[in-house]
Amino acid sequence: MRMNFDIEVRITLKPGILDPEGRAIQHALADLGFPTSRLSTARIFSISMEAGDRTEAEEKARQMCERLLANPVIHRYEVEVRE
Amino acid sequence: MRMNFDIEVRITLKPGILDPEGRAIQHALADLGFPTSRLSTARIFSISMEAGDRTEAEEKARQMCERLLANPVIHRYEVEVRE
Repeated sequence: MRMNFDIEVRITLKPGILDPEGRAIQHALADLGFPTSRLSTARIFSISMEAGDRTEAEEKARQMCERLLANPVIHRYEVEVRE
Repeated sequence: MRMNFDIEVRITLKPGILDPEGRAIQHALADLGFPTSRLSTARIFSISMEAGDRTEAEEKARQMCERLLANPVIHRYEVEVRE
């Protein structure tokens, strides 16, 4: 039986990878009067898909990350299966 | 007294706003053998900053969204204050 799964994938930079975009946003916020001591960015993909079970859904989402959603050289990803 | 607050801001497209990037990713995943019934993207900003209290921290984060992080015409944002 195929079931529908809602999955949230969170892509972040690996520790130690420089984040020039984050630094630029932090500077821009400071210039607007909003100083911050830390700012990092992440990308979320909210995905619905069919799978036979939860394990298969999670494995598919990991493959999606490896093949397309993340750049394994610089990104780490977390997969959360709901439903 | 100033305290440090960790804040997570989540930026998503407003309902009804077309998401060509999401559609392109969905098509690319399907071409790789990963069909999905829904895919949407969001941007997360994880921010540390000082504020006098939780309410002030949340209000500052909302101002950051209105002034820089989000485009109020097409985006909605959620602010979550931790600590």
